[in-house]
Amino acid sequence: MCSTAAELLPALALVFGVAVAFAPIPRITWEHQEVGLVRFHEPGIYNYSALLMSEDEGTLYVGAREAVFAVSALNISRKLHEVYWEVSEDKKAKCAEKGKSKQTECLNYIRVLQPLSSTSLYVCGTNAFQPTCDHLNLTSFKFLGKNEDGKGRCPFDPAHSYTSVIVDGELYSGTSYNFLGSEPIISRNSSHSPLRTEYAIPWLNEPSFVYADVIRRSPDGMEGEDDRVYFFFTEVSVEYEFVLKLMIPRIARVCKGDQGGLRTLQKKWTSFLKARLICSRPDSGLVFNVLRDVFVLRGPGLKEPIFYALFTPQLNNVGLSAVCAYNLSTAEAVFSRGKYMQSATVEQSHTKWVRYNGPVPTPRPGACINSEARAANYTSSLSLPDKTLQFVKDHPLMDDSVTPIDNRPRLIKRDVNYTQIVVDRTRALDGTIYDVIFVSTDRGALHKAVNLESEVHIIEETQLFQDSEPVQTLLLSSKKGRRFVYAGSNSGVVQAPLAFCGKHSSCQDCILARDPYCAWSPTEAACVIVYQAEGTSRAWIQEMSGDTSSCPDKIKESSPQHPFKHGDTAELKCSQKSNLARVVWKFQNGVLKAESPKYGLMGRKNLLIFNLSEGDSGVYQCLAEERVRNKTVSQVVAKLEVQVLPRPSLASHSP
Amino acid sequence: MCSTAAELLPALALVFGVAVAFAPIPRITWEHQEVGLVRFHEPGIYNYSALLMSEDEGTLYVGAREAVFAVSALNISRKLHEVYWEVSEDKKAKCAEKGKSKQTECLNYIRVLQPLSSTSLYVCGTNAFQPTCDHLNLTSFKFLGKNEDGKGRCPFDPAHSYTSVIVDGELYSGTSYNFLGSEPIISRNSSHSPLRTEYAIPWLNEPSFVYADVIRRSPDGMEGEDDRVYFFFTEVSVEYEFVLKLMIPRIARVCKGDQGGLRTLQKKWTSFLKARLICSRPDSGLVFNVLRDVFVLRGPGLKEPIFYALFTPQLNNVGLSAVCAYNLSTAEAVFSRGKYMQSATVEQSHTKWVRYNGPVPTPRPGACINSEARAANYTSSLSLPDKTLQFVKDHPLMDDSVTPIDNRPRLIKRDVNYTQIVVDRTRALDGTIYDVIFVSTDRGALHKAVNLESEVHIIEETQLFQDSEPVQTLLLSSKKGRRFVYAGSNSGVVQAPLAFCGKHSSCQDCILARDPYCAWSPTEAACVIVYQAEGTSRAWIQEMSGDTSSCPDKIKESSPQHPFKHGDTAELKCSQKSNLARVVWKFQNGVLKAESPKYGLMGRKNLLIFNLSEGDSGVYQCLAEERVRNKTVSQVVAKLEVQVLPRPSLASHSP
Repeated sequence: MCSTAAELLPALALVFGVAVAFAPIPRITWEHQEVGLVRFHEPGIYNYSALLMSEDEGTLYVGAREAVFAVSALNISRKLHEVYWEVSEDKKAKCAEKGKSKQTECLNYIRVLQPLSSTSLYVCGTNAFQPTCDHLNLTSFKFLGKNEDGKGRCPFDPAHSYTSVIVDGELYSGTSYNFLGSEPIISRNSSHSPLRTEYAIPWLNEPSFVYADVIRRSPDGMEGEDDRVYFFFTEVSVEYEFVLKLMIPRIARVCKGDQGGLRTLQKKWTSFLKARLICSRPDSGLVFNVLRDVFVLRGPGLKEPIFYALFTPQLNNVGLSAVCAYNLSTAEAVFSRGKYMQSATVEQSHTKWVRYNGPVPTPRPGACINSEARAANYTSSLSLPDKTLQFVKDHPLMDDSVTPIDNRPRLIKRDVNYTQIVVDRTRALDGTIYDVIFVSTDRGALHKAVNLESEVHIIEETQLFQDSEPVQTLLLSSKKGRRFVYAGSNSGVVQAPLAFCGKHSSCQDCILARDPYCAWSPTEAACVIVYQAEGTSRAWIQEMSGDTSSCPDKIKESSPQHPFKHGDTAELKCSQKSNLARVVWKFQNGVLKAESPKYGLMGRKNLLIFNLSEGDSGVYQCLAEERVRNKTVSQVVAKLEVQVLPRPSLASHSP
Repeated sequence: MCSTAAELLPALALVFGVAVAFAPIPRITWEHQEVGLVRFHEPGIYNYSALLMSEDEGTLYVGAREAVFAVSALNISRKLHEVYWEVSEDKKAKCAEKGKSKQTECLNYIRVLQPLSSTSLYVCGTNAFQPTCDHLNLTSFKFLGKNEDGKGRCPFDPAHSYTSVIVDGELYSGTSYNFLGSEPIISRNSSHSPLRTEYAIPWLNEPSFVYADVIRRSPDGMEGEDDRVYFFFTEVSVEYEFVLKLMIPRIARVCKGDQGGLRTLQKKWTSFLKARLICSRPDSGLVFNVLRDVFVLRGPGLKEPIFYALFTPQLNNVGLSAVCAYNLSTAEAVFSRGKYMQSATVEQSHTKWVRYNGPVPTPRPGACINSEARAANYTSSLSLPDKTLQFVKDHPLMDDSVTPIDNRPRLIKRDVNYTQIVVDRTRALDGTIYDVIFVSTDRGALHKAVNLESEVHIIEETQLFQDSEPVQTLLLSSKKGRRFVYAGSNSGVVQAPLAFCGKHSSCQDCILARDPYCAWSPTEAACVIVYQAEGTSRAWIQEMSGDTSSCPDKIKESSPQHPFKHGDTAELKCSQKSNLARVVWKFQNGVLKAESPKYGLMGRKNLLIFNLSEGDSGVYQCLAEERVRNKTVSQVVAKLEVQVLPRPSLASHSP
């Protein structure tokens, strides 16, 4: 009898090819102790998850579990104020009775830390599953004891998602509305016009809230435009299906001027619309559908804000993260001109969401009240016709998606789970603008990345937290004289400078870093920070291409080693920081073969020479070879002179 | 002004947790030169993609590009016969005119190599995009020159997918039917009743064919049952939607007795039904939806055949593979009793596939003609009523899915792309049955895995091909006296034994391998192959738990090293093969700290002792510590005696 074997070929190369890609390696790894970062930590206090910067005062506010601190933004180890907000014993007991952990869940986790006025903060905490809000007076640094109900502003459960932003004194928040966390809500907490989402699957379907911020009407925009508040979250998809529950990242927006409807959508948003955020590489089968964090990049040089969004995949995620960037106008266009989706019943029993192709009522459902609407006598959402309101109530989901700039991710990195993102727009010496992306990992590190000619370059990786704990919060301060990234984790807060230029000791190293913040100053013979430049930058050398040819020639002098004896083993040290470089040892201009009986490598850098004899005397060079834009740049990192003492003459040993 | 930082917490642990899991490491890595495998390769001939075993004759037939070989199954380097089938120059020229590569695509790739009779093989090749079939006489080892049109049996393009099986002299095949490869077909090539699939999306939607085999009626089954031919492929899903084209793995089957319909489905399958193959871990977000290979495990001890299927994910695949196993009866139940799917039009313009809940005609659409049907006077598919035929024509897709045994994958492995699978069912010494899974990689390696108490143990990894090329074909021969895995790649064929027991030199090593093929023979003091046992196995030791306590105590004797001189560096060697073990060096019963100024590790195993002094004299032990089922097993791998010669007295140096 015969049996046969099956075969496969097609598409193999395509799909398998992905495995080797998307692995940009941070050029430099800074260990925790190597860079000496300033740290804030109060003994016994954990979960430093809320950071708020007062740029004017130079104060960083830190919300932790059962405490709020004010620290100096220049040096966060300098504590200015502290206030504690603990759960009372009987509340703790009641919380424990409901089956929650007294030691962890039944405490007060600060989840809202927002500026209310120049002299007070709005603070909410989970408060043993009884979310409560209060005002913190910044002069006395004492709570006013308002004891406001925090329901809908702050989650009950510290494990549940939340986001909030204060706009003109009113808190906009996305969180869960009940003890179980099963009722999601996006609401405005306002005395004169509180508004909220409908409790219905088409509006919010098991969302995880990630971020919220206000986008002010553009000063040069159409007259009568409204400010908009954007919400970012991941929810369970209604429009897609696969073998498991599919998540989908969303961008949603409401109008600040929304007053709700008069009858339909009374005290509900009449301007709540949401759309898909796309971040994928279909050619490689990559789909990033879990939103982790958002950063809104604004700047005087920017025509419009850019949303930087951090994603991980839901499916087959064994360590993969991506960053996509979106123009505000792309999102606005989807909401103001895009098609809607609608749910339809198929064959009696199935509900499917499809594009709505029918007539759309006027005024356009979900639109902010603008001059045009006012001209048509719709002066507020209260006067909107029932048809428009009913439509938006049933069709909150757009059919068009918000696609990223250049239609692809800015950064894809495998073998890592990023948690938070901040982005700094900076100008290199030659005037080129770079968006420097700072992303934190679930293992306590910070990656600093930049796009160089459509290639991602991870300039460096800094171990912010020694214990490899997840970074929970990132905050960027890019004010002149105070440019730092602040990171919060369970154990504390860390303050890191935007660059470690001074750590690069040679011109080559400084250029090869390809760090827009760093340049080589020939006069000081040091790698200096560009943004501290004042007029003196003329002679500085910065080549983002990595071309080191402008670097002044410097002949490395060889350092003599202790003399070695015949038969000894020598260890020659070479300190070389770049993870992208290969160490090559040369002797008499010949490349040495490590792992031979004569030579060995220790720690992949240091050369071992076994069984020394006089012929081994001479100068050894350690070279770092680094590929930059398909060219190999080679630099001598160490030059060491070995002297082997002559063998004691045999005669002296003979009897 | 104040700015705030966003935060995230929930579900982080869940999704990120996946990153560290699914990374079982092969315990032993055998390099290519270490195991000395027998190899077959004919100079100038490439693409050894078709393997066919004649167990009776002990001959392995190898189909390559433009050639077929017969080699000895016991030693494949022994070539028995060869025959060449080259493309004529004018055909090649015509093919090149159509824009194909003369050097690669316009050659004759053997794609069908099937047993036609005891004296002939059925062979088809792509033949420069003019697929052609012929009969190969095994006595003369010459082609009969039949020059049959291979359309629908063999692809035009060597890059396109294909599968085939001969059943009772008739070829069943799945491939593409045209030059472009755009028309997929599953057909039976039969003189009296050729049948094929409809050319319609619901039947086949851009499929990649993977495997086909016949399942004979069960001897103890219902009377009048029919043999079935199963096809396995991946196609574009019609029932699911996401942000990109979703692939879905399918199992399809036809009945051997099918004759097509009389009017409806004339010369088409009336018994073609297909269903989803599920291989996923929803709790970890893992979905394996690209089928790579299938192996049908049969055996005298098996109640029913088991389909072993190898998958990779389509989405976010940066190196991930899985194996799922399915009972034949699960698939049969879906086809014979499951619900059908139907396409429905939603809101004029959208087509969605949903479960069909309406009445199903009798006889059941797609069912094989059995005794019951015959009793109702449906003696063949030609007599089936139009209603049944029209239904199966419109509803070839089942709504129920074929779920794997235990509802989860047998094996999940990250950082690897498996290409092919074979499975051997073997009995350990204690009578326990193990399914040993052999999977090949896209980098020329073979992994051998076994499930031990719901944990996957990869016994070993063997580098079959030195050049890290993808393994294209695997074939298992588990006949007594000839137990080998044969692997074909672009460069050649390799023959590997099922186990390398003899390579384990100690009882501990032999047990820790946890290889059901291996046991320790105390009398021979060797690790021996179990399946070669003949009565003498009584005293053999095999503990699949990895418990080495039954191993005879053996005191390792220390081997003296060359005496060292004062100030020398000593390198002590420790050869230890297990990738799961940690090497620990001991001196005077204290554990030595590597990477201290005194000690260093070379190649993560060998100990370096720097600057030797007399106090360093003594016995050094290299221990391998290996965790097996939460217990650490420690064994002394090397025991080395160092003697440092006394320092020459200083006096002798003084003048």
